[in-house]
Amino acid sequence: MSQPVYARMAVIGCGLIGSSVIRAARAAGAAGAVAVADASEAHRARIAELGYADAVTADPAEAVAGADLVVFAVPPMAMGDAARAAAPGVKAGATVTDVGSVKAAVAQALAANLPETCFIVPGHPIAGTEQSGPDAGFAELFQNRWTILTPQARTDAPYQAAVEGLTEFWTALGANVELMDDRHHDLVLAVTSHLPHLIAYNIVGTAADLEGVTQGEVMKYSAGGFRDFTRIAASDPTMWRDVFLTNKDAILEVLGRFTEDLQALSRAIRWAEGDKLFELFSRTREIRRGIIAAGQESAAPNFGRDLRTPETPDTKPQ
Amino acid sequence: MSQPVYARMAVIGCGLIGSSVIRAARAAGAAGAVAVADASEAHRARIAELGYADAVTADPAEAVAGADLVVFAVPPMAMGDAARAAAPGVKAGATVTDVGSVKAAVAQALAANLPETCFIVPGHPIAGTEQSGPDAGFAELFQNRWTILTPQARTDAPYQAAVEGLTEFWTALGANVELMDDRHHDLVLAVTSHLPHLIAYNIVGTAADLEGVTQGEVMKYSAGGFRDFTRIAASDPTMWRDVFLTNKDAILEVLGRFTEDLQALSRAIRWAEGDKLFELFSRTREIRRGIIAAGQESAAPNFGRDLRTPETPDTKPQ
Repeated sequence: MSQPVYARMAVIGCGLIGSSVIRAARAAGAAGAVAVADASEAHRARIAELGYADAVTADPAEAVAGADLVVFAVPPMAMGDAARAAAPGVKAGATVTDVGSVKAAVAQALAANLPETCFIVPGHPIAGTEQSGPDAGFAELFQNRWTILTPQARTDAPYQAAVEGLTEFWTALGANVELMDDRHHDLVLAVTSHLPHLIAYNIVGTAADLEGVTQGEVMKYSAGGFRDFTRIAASDPTMWRDVFLTNKDAILEVLGRFTEDLQALSRAIRWAEGDKLFELFSRTREIRRGIIAAGQESAAPNFGRDLRTPETPDTKPQ
Repeated sequence: MSQPVYARMAVIGCGLIGSSVIRAARAAGAAGAVAVADASEAHRARIAELGYADAVTADPAEAVAGADLVVFAVPPMAMGDAARAAAPGVKAGATVTDVGSVKAAVAQALAANLPETCFIVPGHPIAGTEQSGPDAGFAELFQNRWTILTPQARTDAPYQAAVEGLTEFWTALGANVELMDDRHHDLVLAVTSHLPHLIAYNIVGTAADLEGVTQGEVMKYSAGGFRDFTRIAASDPTMWRDVFLTNKDAILEVLGRFTEDLQALSRAIRWAEGDKLFELFSRTREIRRGIIAAGQESAAPNFGRDLRTPETPDTKPQ
């Protein structure tokens, strides 16, 4: 790329996603100067040490001053406060986006707190790991993943240009971009992300509390399936608390369906209806094949985690 | 190993686990001649092609003739029939084991159908992948995993020697061996394996059926968490149907706990009790750290599935 999509980028909040956006944008040459604001002193010190930002501050208004792109990368319920703090510094004509896992509530929080002269284009990269903090990010996180943008209902040319610019930015970072209505996003993600996290958190909690089985036994024999669930149940607690509280309606709706289906499955077990079980278990196999065919999953058994050789590092290079 | 633990081994059923036992025993020099019985003609042809057995037959009694170790590796509800078919060929003094995920029901099925002159030591290697069939097995599957043996309540020296021999065999295959009461095994595994599989099957089914969200969307945006669940929901349908039907009581018990906890979580979301959510989500993180510390899980983000380089094969070598 001969010229960055944005000459100046500001990132507010520099955890797993914020730091990955910076690293990926740097690697792709998609952003020029990068300023970071982070509320945590420890994070700021670490970001300065890692050296991937040109400026690090505690003040969002200072970080966004002069920025062509502002990326809010804080937990969903912190978006409103972060936007309010940044507002005095946001320049007219700047593109403002976020990376929150919930879109309708976040879009509202941004619009309520930012000047009308900027272009707000909420976004959500469907990518992540169970780790958090400024050390957790890496430049390849968005490669071949989807980023959903949920533009406002406005059709003026400058706003359309802002949407196109942000699409170009995410494409440069390796993502596939899709536009979507924010309510629909929140329902789709309730199924593909929020419910799975809720279930994982719940099952890990249930297992830890069960009398008759020790926590040591749970850990020792976890290779039978349980350990898969612990990965997503190790995700950032603050962010996930916020997701559940800000996408409450869609999550309770899909959770209701899940519970209904689970009752039916429970009844099939109680009454030894083997055919019903077999039919479901055969159907679910096909879904995984579809995800692998869609390039969103590794085809290797056990996610390939048994394939690592001594030469393959066990953790991401920092 | 200078001398095999068993001069002649027979394996009844040659899917993922059966074929892995053979490959691992061959690699470790833990078994001499290996005979296989499999009910599927396609499997038998493939086993002959792969060439890892000395003899392949459809008849369990023929396969077990003269064997010092007999390993039943068929789904739990097929164990009784397989044992009945093999019984005429089982030699006096042979050690007989299995690899079933449920122990009390399988132990009963084996004891009811085999001659009293053999030593039945039921077993369960806590290892596997979501794949199945004679091509899915590999020699390293049991490395650093646990194998639980659930010996009968008898204290005579010949039986103790059989338990010791089988422990030596599994240790040679790379496993850590633990002895346990079969009822306790079934409760522990209901938590660490059976419930996770049930939940995964259920959530994948719920997602596939949800109106308002297409199956294409579910697959496309699965990297948000859902794809993790599809791995175990791609496991062998026959085997898992059998697990749920033969360990019904323990599974319904832990499922009841899970549902109770899920209702409480649902209520906390509805009433916006953020502190309760945060407390649970912080606690579950620790469990994963314990599993990694216990050597039962990769510490790499996303199970390391993003770490693969072009030189790393995407599937197991056959």
